[in-house]
Amino acid sequence: MARPRTFDEAQVLRAVRDQFWNKGYAATSMDDLMQATGLGKGSLYGAFGDKHQLFLKVFDAYCVSSVESVRKTLEGPDAGALERLRQYLLGVATASAAPSNRRGCLLGRGTAELAAQDAHVADRALETFQGLEAAFVHCLEQARAHGDLAAQADPRKLGAMLLAVMRGLEAVGKAGMDEASLRGMVETTFENLPAPAKRRR
Amino acid sequence: MARPRTFDEAQVLRAVRDQFWNKGYAATSMDDLMQATGLGKGSLYGAFGDKHQLFLKVFDAYCVSSVESVRKTLEGPDAGALERLRQYLLGVATASAAPSNRRGCLLGRGTAELAAQDAHVADRALETFQGLEAAFVHCLEQARAHGDLAAQADPRKLGAMLLAVMRGLEAVGKAGMDEASLRGMVETTFENLPAPAKRRR
Repeated sequence: MARPRTFDEAQVLRAVRDQFWNKGYAATSMDDLMQATGLGKGSLYGAFGDKHQLFLKVFDAYCVSSVESVRKTLEGPDAGALERLRQYLLGVATASAAPSNRRGCLLGRGTAELAAQDAHVADRALETFQGLEAAFVHCLEQARAHGDLAAQADPRKLGAMLLAVMRGLEAVGKAGMDEASLRGMVETTFENLPAPAKRRR
Repeated sequence: MARPRTFDEAQVLRAVRDQFWNKGYAATSMDDLMQATGLGKGSLYGAFGDKHQLFLKVFDAYCVSSVESVRKTLEGPDAGALERLRQYLLGVATASAAPSNRRGCLLGRGTAELAAQDAHVADRALETFQGLEAAFVHCLEQARAHGDLAAQADPRKLGAMLLAVMRGLEAVGKAGMDEASLRGMVETTFENLPAPAKRRR
């Protein structure tokens, strides 16, 4: 009996993810996935299921790691929390403007293409947006505690607004809006956050 | 000789638009377009060209009419300009949350799916985003002139920030974020705009 072909699952899933990410879901065929992974249809089906199951697998993993990575990036003491958040969003602006990122993020791309017809994708995207928002809210609570935001500022409301700005950066960046414009959107948002009555030195 | 079939061009293009809007570009076949329009392949090709040309035609028309419609909605005297803009964005929030709008707007959807590979789509989307931004900026200039914004407020910067918020509403609405959350993002944004030193009565 022939030994089943062995492969590196993480590597295969990265290739699958990049294929969907670059071309979109509908435009990707099983043939594309076979070519991208170097695996035959039987191996792919056997290990992961059909095209839809493959997409869900890489989309889920992308969503989970996006929230984890943002949480880690924002982690730290109350001092500097507001600046960490600002730097993070400036980084999103720069990344969204990069020509190499014209494909957008897989979360935005997958949601735009599939959420309307695919409840799993919509649910997972919503959960991810809420996870990002919660990370922003936590950071804003730290900033308020440290006196970098007005005492009456509402971190929950401001975190939701920052989520809208963040996803907007991604959306307009895909159309080729330049980096200075995208970073300016973040700067303006932060300039307009409720400042403490008296700034700490 | 058989008379060529006559058809209502506007009606055909609406059917084509809705087909792309509902299913996306790659997931739409020429067969889908024939079924949606009731026209044969020859009539469609003869009148409008191939699938790609059909998409560009309806995408362009959608972009032009989006900017026109926003301009018209925001048109009016300096008094009430800020409130018109607020109401407009609250309307975007409500529309983005409606289950019937889960497909998102065609501009967001088309950009997410195609801008990376299709320079025409990216250029047209960028032009549209800039047109929306210019309409916001104009409205904010009116608001500042009327004393509803701080004298030192920068309408250009604030208009760009509002564009990010607007496109973010559309992006998270597609994942099924509820209406109250989306409207809250708009309310928070407006609560944090630079207020005039002394509010007019």
